[in-house]
Amino acid sequence: MIGKAIAAWGTQFRSRGLLPAILMNVSQLLAFARAFRYRLLYGRSILASVFAMQGGSTIEIFNKRARCRVGRFVFMRKNISIRLDDEGQLTLGDHVFINDNCTINCALRVSIGEYTKIAPNVCINDHDHNFRGDAEGHLLKGEVVIGSNVWIGTGSIILRDTVIGDNAVIAAGSIVKGYVPSDTLFMNKREKHFSAISRASEEEAVRAPAKGAEAI
Amino acid sequence: MIGKAIAAWGTQFRSRGLLPAILMNVSQLLAFARAFRYRLLYGRSILASVFAMQGGSTIEIFNKRARCRVGRFVFMRKNISIRLDDEGQLTLGDHVFINDNCTINCALRVSIGEYTKIAPNVCINDHDHNFRGDAEGHLLKGEVVIGSNVWIGTGSIILRDTVIGDNAVIAAGSIVKGYVPSDTLFMNKREKHFSAISRASEEEAVRAPAKGAEAI
Amino acid sequence: MIGKAIAAWGTQFRSRGLLPAILMNVSQLLAFARAFRYRLLYGRSILASVFAMQGGSTIEIFNKRARCRVGRFVFMRKNISIRLDDEGQLTLGDHVFINDNCTINCALRVSIGEYTKIAPNVCINDHDHNFRGDAEGHLLKGEVVIGSNVWIGTGSIILRDTVIGDNAVIAAGSIVKGYVPSDTLFMNKREKHFSAISRASEEEAVRAPAKGAEAI
Repeated sequence: MIGKAIAAWGTQFRSRGLLPAILMNVSQLLAFARAFRYRLLYGRSILASVFAMQGGSTIEIFNKRARCRVGRFVFMRKNISIRLDDEGQLTLGDHVFINDNCTINCALRVSIGEYTKIAPNVCINDHDHNFRGDAEGHLLKGEVVIGSNVWIGTGSIILRDTVIGDNAVIAAGSIVKGYVPSDTLFMNKREKHFSAISRASEEEAVRAPAKGAEAI
Repeated sequence: MIGKAIAAWGTQFRSRGLLPAILMNVSQLLAFARAFRYRLLYGRSILASVFAMQGGSTIEIFNKRARCRVGRFVFMRKNISIRLDDEGQLTLGDHVFINDNCTINCALRVSIGEYTKIAPNVCINDHDHNFRGDAEGHLLKGEVVIGSNVWIGTGSIILRDTVIGDNAVIAAGSIVKGYVPSDTLFMNKREKHFSAISRASEEEAVRAPAKGAEAI
Repeated sequence: MIGKAIAAWGTQFRSRGLLPAILMNVSQLLAFARAFRYRLLYGRSILASVFAMQGGSTIEIFNKRARCRVGRFVFMRKNISIRLDDEGQLTLGDHVFINDNCTINCALRVSIGEYTKIAPNVCINDHDHNFRGDAEGHLLKGEVVIGSNVWIGTGSIILRDTVIGDNAVIAAGSIVKGYVPSDTLFMNKREKHFSAISRASEEEAVRAPAKGAEAI
């Protein structure tokens, strides 16, 4: 088995090239080290074997009753924020992949099945603010259960009380609350709208944004 | 009053547990220190008492006429970007809470009332590029005034010339330009669309994404 | 020409004020240095002259056949992620401006014309996961070609097989796949929906979110 791994490694270096392969491996090694630091920091609040977190990614656990279970070879890219509070139970299955800038806020239960891939800028919440201020308390909680081999597209938002079945695909920019069956593509319908732009003067139009860009 | 604070602190340590409470308090302390550095850096361009900024959060002020007023116990989580240019006047009321990856770009006036909560990935702008290049200049500016106790949901985009009344709720993923009255829930209507996924072979479908994930 | 540049610099210091101008220039200098480090790191995989990357922005190139061409005075703000794999060819024209938290994932070809401005939280991909698992391979690739002087609004998502013509404007929050002609404003239609919020008690409503905010 170790021989097999070394052979795979050799193939990788040949196909990617020496420099890209070295830089990629160093970056991944640092990501595994970064994740390991969180295991040391939080003790038994994080139950995990080997997983990786790239730069700016953090785990924060605000309560001793919360548990963060992270499967093997879970890979988090840059600037992921994972936060647990109250009795929150977060489970990330083996080989879950989470791309840049995703946030997971868990105060009850969030479960993500193995091999599920999460694209950049996805936010997952298992609670809302109780803005009506009624007797149910400050947070309205509802479990989020996402199956195996799901692909959640860029910029999607997953709200409380959501179940997504195995192999489902959530199209980019979706807002999901409720039930998405297995083997289903979910999307929010969108109509395209095109309109012509008339400009004061072509020369002005070309120059304007370059200066304006300073402030945006 | 100090006795009361210490009692509240003790309760927090008991209910959260020693380790989570210590880590949370250290993290918050660092966030307050980080915010204080910006006050030192920008002098009277930032008018603030005690506020907090987590890692990667920055304030940039590009003009001496711009003013950034930050109320007591404003809390910014990770990777917030606040930028002021021209005569921009940004006011964040007491106890405003801003979650990860939000951006506020102010070149005229942005005002956010006390206790307002802003979810992750929200962008607030008080100006647009003048892409028609007419006589109004490079930037088209319009004030953004957000009331007290508003909750702005995940991934919302607040554009120039917007007024949001007190206690309003902006649903996740909304794009807001114009007027939202007090005590109102605003959302963009969305239709859900489900379609079945047929696959070439189940075995292939399970393995494919794991390899593809390297590049996404 | 150098005299002219110094004069422009002097004007900048007078109009912005000494402290804001110094801090802005130091920040930009660091961004240019940060970008230069990537040129040193990746050798001929990055073809560039002078460009800038603010804090948390990264370039990762996973294959020796991939090429990243960056024009003069390209400016990337905070937390940009650029990733190239396979034979990916990424071209950023002169004076392209990329705002916070944008991601560009290129495994085939992404080309962005000069003076194009990209707002915060925009994601550009030239490939999808092949979730149907058919014979076309793990990734489904399709070129993304964006013209000159385009403005891509906040939070937009640009998918594979997309061509956007010169001077086009993509409205905030758009999802784009396909063809957008030159001099065209593209947007996804959105209906606004308002509903009144009834609350259990006003006093409760004001206090509730302040406490709940800890966990969101």
